Amino acid sequence: MAPPLDQRPNHKLIGVAGSREQLATPALILDLEAFEGNIATMAAWARENSLGLRPHAKTHKCSTIAKRQVEAGASGNCTATLAEAEVLVDAGIPGVLITSTVVTPDRIARLIDLNDRAKGLMVIVDDTSNVDALNAAAQGHDPLYVLVDIEVGCGRTGVVAPAAAIDLIDHVTASPNLRFGGVQAYDGGVQAIEDFTERRKALAADLEPLRQVLADMERRGTAVIIVSGGGTGTHDLDRIGGIFTEIQAGSYCVMDRIYNACDLHGTGRTVFKTSLFVRTTVISTAKKGFVITDAGLKAFATGSGDPVIVSGAPTGATYTFMGDEHGRITFVKEGHGMALGDQVECIVPHCDPTISLYDCYHVVEGDTLVDIWPIDARGHW
Amino acid sequence: MAPPLDQRPNHKLIGVAGSREQLATPALILDLEAFEGNIATMAAWARENSLGLRPHAKTHKCSTIAKRQVEAGASGNCTATLAEAEVLVDAGIPGVLITSTVVTPDRIARLIDLNDRAKGLMVIVDDTSNVDALNAAAQGHDPLYVLVDIEVGCGRTGVVAPAAAIDLIDHVTASPNLRFGGVQAYDGGVQAIEDFTERRKALAADLEPLRQVLADMERRGTAVIIVSGGGTGTHDLDRIGGIFTEIQAGSYCVMDRIYNACDLHGTGRTVFKTSLFVRTTVISTAKKGFVITDAGLKAFATGSGDPVIVSGAPTGATYTFMGDEHGRITFVKEGHGMALGDQVECIVPHCDPTISLYDCYHVVEGDTLVDIWPIDARGHW
Repeated sequence: MAPPLDQRPNHKLIGVAGSREQLATPALILDLEAFEGNIATMAAWARENSLGLRPHAKTHKCSTIAKRQVEAGASGNCTATLAEAEVLVDAGIPGVLITSTVVTPDRIARLIDLNDRAKGLMVIVDDTSNVDALNAAAQGHDPLYVLVDIEVGCGRTGVVAPAAAIDLIDHVTASPNLRFGGVQAYDGGVQAIEDFTERRKALAADLEPLRQVLADMERRGTAVIIVSGGGTGTHDLDRIGGIFTEIQAGSYCVMDRIYNACDLHGTGRTVFKTSLFVRTTVISTAKKGFVITDAGLKAFATGSGDPVIVSGAPTGATYTFMGDEHGRITFVKEGHGMALGDQVECIVPHCDPTISLYDCYHVVEGDTLVDIWPIDARGHW
Repeated sequence: MAPPLDQRPNHKLIGVAGSREQLATPALILDLEAFEGNIATMAAWARENSLGLRPHAKTHKCSTIAKRQVEAGASGNCTATLAEAEVLVDAGIPGVLITSTVVTPDRIARLIDLNDRAKGLMVIVDDTSNVDALNAAAQGHDPLYVLVDIEVGCGRTGVVAPAAAIDLIDHVTASPNLRFGGVQAYDGGVQAIEDFTERRKALAADLEPLRQVLADMERRGTAVIIVSGGGTGTHDLDRIGGIFTEIQAGSYCVMDRIYNACDLHGTGRTVFKTSLFVRTTVISTAKKGFVITDAGLKAFATGSGDPVIVSGAPTGATYTFMGDEHGRITFVKEGHGMALGDQVECIVPHCDPTISLYDCYHVVEGDTLVDIWPIDARGHW
């Protein structure tokens, strides 16, 4: 197993001036000022728009960050897994919503146990037999709050609306040990559409079945307290039309190449700053025109383009993966170069799966490492 | 931090008949019989060809596996990083070769310290200033064995042969606290060429500069004890021509989609069996034609195709990624389906970066979980 964080080489650099440039790499960097700005900006946006904010912990997997989001006004955190929820609940985070279904007997037992010690725990459902299993398991325990998951173009979990959604809502409300908390509808398919207008159009079309369900519920007088969905890509669109009561955005607190490329607000610029970087060291200068670093496919999630160098390299230099363990910094001008031991920082292509490669954030203020935060929800089942 | 392995839900399933199908997922599976067969097959191949075998631990990151490889006859293990070498040395593995350069002052100090407690440690070099730094740091310590890294088409570390390689060898032999152990030449660029003949041609061309260096050394009477290189893709070609003294293959012990697609021996079939799988659970059956699982971009390394389902799903079903947390199993016939809680196992697209996502192997014999092996070199810097 990996050693405790306080026994790792970078721990001794906490508080040392200039330590950001001396870290053993590859190292995940969190710029505290940018990060805190993002937390505050999104919290203020939610307040101004009278929307709830339940940021998704699948991005950060870190109870320290979850606490800061709640302190800034978030109602809790979403989690992608039961195991993440267990970590956050046991760290004192209220209002945890598990945005995946929990279906196996072992995990249902853990969920019920967790619910008895949690404050405001919720889970999604998209299947009547699963509702029955949860209801049976909750017998004799605290009532379990569930949201009915509705398909809105994501193609993952979620019942097809309106008919199946309404049936499932009825099934939940008829289950004595469950409480119908509302619905979840996450449109993962449109979050990364770069053009604001295109994203708006696609989202509006995808949300139509959800509108029908909500209209039907209103006609029937069934209260839908929570309508949870949205993300960093659509949050400024999700506020329109009064559909959602809360937003599940996750990436906004750190940002990445994908969301930096999106026109998030229709203004051509984003109000969020990149706070997450991977730092890597030059370990070979034996060739002309490029140098080799110590961060490859094991240090970045792939499939969303190359890392973007933001500091440490000559102007115009680009970063490409060279297998599992190495990256290549290619220079654009003769005479450009870097020395052994030099370091660069890169914006990551996709934040969530990159963060889950690491055990901790190196929290920096300017050039100084000021703290190390464990990614304490990583590696749990 | 992730909890100790013996406090995780799957630990209690060790020794329980049928437990392979009850694991909390996503879970990394190691089929013991296939794995042990691969270890024995490669060890026998090396003996028969009078070649050394120093398997690469960047694949498995596991001292338990390294021990088994050494017990089967390997001379040690390669590692991609100093931190991996520290884990293996401290687990008692002899003959560790660090196949990346170690260039920063902090890491050089750790390397020298490690060398004093290791048996047969070696590191590669590709730069004269790095040789000088290692030589200075080794003053007053055990002599440090180094291999000169030679470029043979990989485009990562390694000096360009022949001229720069010969100069660097001279520089090493003139360094009083270092010992010239030989050369490393890894041709990562050809390993995954699927056709045997094409791979052979590409390899032969790439190795030409190495041949020149070795011929020059022979003329000069300089002993090159170790010529280390090769991999799973080329091992059956690396034996030809008497260039290499040892092979660094790593993936052979587990195999993956990439190497299963390669004609490794020119026979149209491989002697190695797939021993590594990712097991995942169906968590949504709300749609027609497909179901959703709990293993996505955080459970498989991406960029080398999709996972290949080998058990648990109807014939012809395919696996695709559906974002960070989910996979989709798509059926090819009406009437095909799976139920909530059903599980499938998949061959991984690329073994090394997939393994480094996990903390442990679930070691199975048939349908029973028989052990859990920590991936103890993961998460070190």
